[in-house]
Amino acid sequence: MFEQLGLIGCGLMGGSFALAMKQAGLVKQVVGYSKSPTTTAKARQLGVIDVEAPSALLAVSGADIVLLAVPVAATEDSFKAIRHLLTPQTLLMDVGSTKGDVVAAAQRVLREHLGGFVPAHPIAGKEVAGVEHADPRLYVDRQVILTPTEHTDPAQTDRAEAVWRALGAQVLRMTPQAHDSTYAAVSHLPHLLAFAYMNGLAAQPEGAKFLAMAGPGFRDFTRIAASDPSVWRDILLTNREEVLAQSRHFRAALEALEQSLTDQRADVLVPLIEQANKQRGAWRLPASKDSD
Amino acid sequence: MFEQLGLIGCGLMGGSFALAMKQAGLVKQVVGYSKSPTTTAKARQLGVIDVEAPSALLAVSGADIVLLAVPVAATEDSFKAIRHLLTPQTLLMDVGSTKGDVVAAAQRVLREHLGGFVPAHPIAGKEVAGVEHADPRLYVDRQVILTPTEHTDPAQTDRAEAVWRALGAQVLRMTPQAHDSTYAAVSHLPHLLAFAYMNGLAAQPEGAKFLAMAGPGFRDFTRIAASDPSVWRDILLTNREEVLAQSRHFRAALEALEQSLTDQRADVLVPLIEQANKQRGAWRLPASKDSD
Repeated sequence: MFEQLGLIGCGLMGGSFALAMKQAGLVKQVVGYSKSPTTTAKARQLGVIDVEAPSALLAVSGADIVLLAVPVAATEDSFKAIRHLLTPQTLLMDVGSTKGDVVAAAQRVLREHLGGFVPAHPIAGKEVAGVEHADPRLYVDRQVILTPTEHTDPAQTDRAEAVWRALGAQVLRMTPQAHDSTYAAVSHLPHLLAFAYMNGLAAQPEGAKFLAMAGPGFRDFTRIAASDPSVWRDILLTNREEVLAQSRHFRAALEALEQSLTDQRADVLVPLIEQANKQRGAWRLPASKDSD
Repeated sequence: MFEQLGLIGCGLMGGSFALAMKQAGLVKQVVGYSKSPTTTAKARQLGVIDVEAPSALLAVSGADIVLLAVPVAATEDSFKAIRHLLTPQTLLMDVGSTKGDVVAAAQRVLREHLGGFVPAHPIAGKEVAGVEHADPRLYVDRQVILTPTEHTDPAQTDRAEAVWRALGAQVLRMTPQAHDSTYAAVSHLPHLLAFAYMNGLAAQPEGAKFLAMAGPGFRDFTRIAASDPSVWRDILLTNREEVLAQSRHFRAALEALEQSLTDQRADVLVPLIEQANKQRGAWRLPASKDSD
């Protein structure tokens, strides 16, 4: 049980966390801050937070648990804004989709407070953003990846895990590096490829005519191309090295397929398709993961 | 109304056509042939065909409508096998997913019978193949693309269109070239990319670990990678020039995205993501196309 949650960023992710914490009886009071005062006011009107803080620092004042739920690119500035009121007992978490950069920022800024910081990535979300869509059940049955660093106090990691489990989530631990390469491989690169594919169509005069004939295969393949540009700007830029490394693996595989077409070598092409078919055919979505 | 349908290839596509024709009362008798006698016998037992023909040529004997429903790569040999019993009145159609190569084969082989050949591509199918899955409603509300050549008798194209409409399909006409570039763009390239992406994962020692963490974005993006290898071998090889041309557009777009990451240029990256997002956001699946 926590006395006070300091919430920095009252959007969908942060707002849902606050609601879930309250509903689970895990926190007595939520003090919230958003960059936009309108958002903070709306969060209070909706009962997502109890008290509006005029600054990130004041949201942390008196808090024994702090959630940083801001765009990844704003993480370092947020650390700077709050570090003077963190105590060794404060459990500090973020919700960023990349972890190496967040950990690097924490190491630069938090220094002696690093022990209380447990980097977290809840694999949850909605097609819509904003505190008005905050949902106390957003994290139920979702995976939350914790990426403690060598400086993280193991007791704080255990507390963080207990919190997310109490909200209904499944908790996994990884190193920040393993997290970033994993998600570069299974999420960030597919987004990059889907963006590139749509842009490759758009670059052609017949692009619109082609699109009009597209079917369900296209629909599913390109669904992620409609993802939020500012979210994906941050993810792709902050995790760019892992994403570019994954893209090199992809390009090599694409070149092998293309070469077999150029050479008209069915005997080379077929095993390549069969490998892809077999890998995908054997894959199953983990039962709990019906949203990412 | 037709007297006799000669069906070459008693699989899912051909079998469904035969059942639909019978159910619509459009044909009196179906004479079928498959390369595998077991398949032909099964088709007769299931009532998909009425008479088993011992050869493709004999399936055509006496037919006023012929459907060639064989793998694209077998088209030319099938034309050769049947051309001696085609008459100027015979309506001959295929169901191949690529059209330039089928038309080229027809021009080489059919010569004076070219007028009766109406190349067709029904955008329909199932996850499962084989005559046991033949379904008289397979073509209902599906698009069928007819690609008549300059040698096709316009009256035969009109007959073909009337047949498919009577089976519930929506009929569109295109040139073979427009067909092949369109489907290279919206279907064949996405398949190639999905195969390459899966193979890029498989090439990494951590591939299996990555796959275990994949979510719904991955699921949808890679669904088409599980497509049938022999079908896609034929499609990609026969339409390779258009597919490779589409891949060049894709590569240029991917390079632009990658360069913006390498240069850490958010101002370049954001418009690229926004373009993809906008194109995909504006796209809608044609109401009838819930299968491809």
